[in-house]
Amino acid sequence: MADPTKVFLDEDDIPTHWYNIVADFPTPPPPPLHPGTKEPLVPDDLAALFPMGLIAQEASTERWIEIPEKVREIYRLWRPSPLHRARRLEAALGTTARIYYKYEGESPVGSHKTNSAVPQAYYNAQEGRMRLTTETGAGQWGSALAFATQIFGQTCEVWQVRNTYESKPYRRILMETFGATVTPSPSDKTEVGRALRERFPDTTGSLGMAISEAIEEAAKDPGASYSLGSVLNHVTLHQSIIGLEAIKQLEKFGEQAPDLLFACAGGGSNLAGIAFPFLRENIEGRMNVKITACEPAAAPSLTQGEYRYDFGDSSGMTPLLKMYTLGNEFVPDPVHAGGLRYHGMAPLVSHAYHEGLMKAIAVKQRDAFAAGVEFARAEGIVPASESNHAIAGALAAARKATEDGTSPVILIGVSGSGQLDLPAYSEFLAGNMLDA
Amino acid sequence: MADPTKVFLDEDDIPTHWYNIVADFPTPPPPPLHPGTKEPLVPDDLAALFPMGLIAQEASTERWIEIPEKVREIYRLWRPSPLHRARRLEAALGTTARIYYKYEGESPVGSHKTNSAVPQAYYNAQEGRMRLTTETGAGQWGSALAFATQIFGQTCEVWQVRNTYESKPYRRILMETFGATVTPSPSDKTEVGRALRERFPDTTGSLGMAISEAIEEAAKDPGASYSLGSVLNHVTLHQSIIGLEAIKQLEKFGEQAPDLLFACAGGGSNLAGIAFPFLRENIEGRMNVKITACEPAAAPSLTQGEYRYDFGDSSGMTPLLKMYTLGNEFVPDPVHAGGLRYHGMAPLVSHAYHEGLMKAIAVKQRDAFAAGVEFARAEGIVPASESNHAIAGALAAARKATEDGTSPVILIGVSGSGQLDLPAYSEFLAGNMLDA
Repeated sequence: MADPTKVFLDEDDIPTHWYNIVADFPTPPPPPLHPGTKEPLVPDDLAALFPMGLIAQEASTERWIEIPEKVREIYRLWRPSPLHRARRLEAALGTTARIYYKYEGESPVGSHKTNSAVPQAYYNAQEGRMRLTTETGAGQWGSALAFATQIFGQTCEVWQVRNTYESKPYRRILMETFGATVTPSPSDKTEVGRALRERFPDTTGSLGMAISEAIEEAAKDPGASYSLGSVLNHVTLHQSIIGLEAIKQLEKFGEQAPDLLFACAGGGSNLAGIAFPFLRENIEGRMNVKITACEPAAAPSLTQGEYRYDFGDSSGMTPLLKMYTLGNEFVPDPVHAGGLRYHGMAPLVSHAYHEGLMKAIAVKQRDAFAAGVEFARAEGIVPASESNHAIAGALAAARKATEDGTSPVILIGVSGSGQLDLPAYSEFLAGNMLDA
Repeated sequence: MADPTKVFLDEDDIPTHWYNIVADFPTPPPPPLHPGTKEPLVPDDLAALFPMGLIAQEASTERWIEIPEKVREIYRLWRPSPLHRARRLEAALGTTARIYYKYEGESPVGSHKTNSAVPQAYYNAQEGRMRLTTETGAGQWGSALAFATQIFGQTCEVWQVRNTYESKPYRRILMETFGATVTPSPSDKTEVGRALRERFPDTTGSLGMAISEAIEEAAKDPGASYSLGSVLNHVTLHQSIIGLEAIKQLEKFGEQAPDLLFACAGGGSNLAGIAFPFLRENIEGRMNVKITACEPAAAPSLTQGEYRYDFGDSSGMTPLLKMYTLGNEFVPDPVHAGGLRYHGMAPLVSHAYHEGLMKAIAVKQRDAFAAGVEFARAEGIVPASESNHAIAGALAAARKATEDGTSPVILIGVSGSGQLDLPAYSEFLAGNMLDA
């Protein structure tokens, strides 16, 4: 096939193993700590919330972890995801750069989140845990888990950040279409929710608060599990299939490696998913990819936070994680990229950043949406609010390359579709978007 | 690749020619008539509204019409579209049938409409017609034309049926994101719109009314064209790539032919697009596919209408078309499948139906959505409201096959994604959906 615009792979090319960056870090990442004893966590500490299959992955130092056949069978509904050469965007920019994007928006819920939701539901079902609770920001993770749990006959209860529950009803309906129940957070259903509402009566909610509620609910019921859509090691592990596929697809385009890689980063699962397989190539000396995490200016954990142990939720119920954090009580401005409104950053992403293995930039949402509209008009894909942050980083780099007369290969991780973010586009186009 | 779940083709397998069923009909379809003289239309009669490139296609009897390279280049953004084997749906139904679906929801606007919007914008631009007006029901056609026109630097003005303009703001925003202007119809901007509002002050609008407005506006300006998203011969021609791809893809699955084909039918472009290439195989004796048009019970032109000459719009501004019609003043109930709320049926589809070359059924919207939810939970794709009508037809056939102990190959045309139809799903799930 001559000069393709996009490259798929056969379903047989869906990776058979997830890639675990822990095996290849030059220095080991700091362990999570028990919040009471401050000692490194042992598997049993997590048994109330997670099935052993996931706990084992959380602590694993194996490089490759086999993907269960049942999970691969479900991945086949939408994977491998396409890698596009952004030919029309390149022409619109008049750039000397070659721009590629890996598009995760064709999944059942329009984002990369199903890549982890399916194995999480699977491992829970294997151990008979048939009730899952979770949080969601923009609703992408919640709808992914709603989709995955109904496959295995599980029930799914989602606490959705109040800001997005109210401003983005479509994703709530999507969760309900897949059979989940959805509660705006903070809610009156949990102790922690009631306490938060008393303390912050006007709060628009945050991922940290919603996590606290979902954890409280799961911890009360031995048959229930809590499920997290980002941050944890096993989530970044599951997402590694994005980067593994992209490496094969770039080869099919005749490219040896990207020079620059941009991905949005909230909790870090999307960034880790596309970047860690390339980071391995860097570590082993086969590539020299400059990886840039694109975070929102409203929640700039890498660029403005501290690298220290902190809680994953707002109420201090989780283990202590060594990560870049804005403090677990930080509540970001209600920007549209609900999936990025998180106070911390995945410990493995934080470690990579701390070790100088990747860069980070903070992007304001108006700049993100300006890039998103430019992308949509050229490529015909309206990107998710979150993905726009990566696109903004990439477009700036492409423009700089053109000025400099260089021709870098740029790879963008486009984590999802923005069809359900259209009200945010409307605000942007009308000039009413919050300058945050 | 063993037992795939879905089959893509290479971009080089995007058809090089559109297929024109007119060349293969056993009897010629009746010509359109001039509304004044009642004589068969000549090309010049259409020159005020359409560019000659499209007028030539409208009247063509050639079997194959070459797709311009520039159009194929844009098709490559999302085509070939995938053909899925609905393995999980088959399992959920416990059916003996083998079910396949051709999915058009991964286009820039989530439906098959871009297949015709791109060539329509192209031929207009070739002749310097840089202002296009159109109507839209659910917003799928309008957003497709908005996408296509901005590629060629054209302006796009869309009259959207008031019912969907108000109930489905997301598609309006999508049109605006691509740079179009959108007006709810009937509007005060046109003479015909003002007359309709005076006559029917509470009307929720109809496709017929919106067509009248868009035509009036285009007819006033020699540099403007009117663009129609369905019904006309050149639109069904452009959509033929759906069926042409599906034939190749079924072969890759090892199937010789479908036994049953279901597609939703409003104006008829989606149905014609997937069905006519198979109908050719039937006519030439290579296949024996039973084709069923699935129309909404709220606008049952094939199953309840008369086969006669009628206007394409509500105000009698178009040529007279020989078609199955409910009468050009018919205003369907405000069902959610806005794309199917049309009083008539494409003349070529009507001719095929009249000649006994295809069947038709009418589906009530609650039954359509029940099938859509079943499909979504199994396949992870939330189908468009319109597509649900085809899925309902197919699921009934699969259940009957299981009862009868037969194993037909069923092909469903899934015309689009329902992500922007989620409010309709919400109504259905809550039990509040109009029984129409």
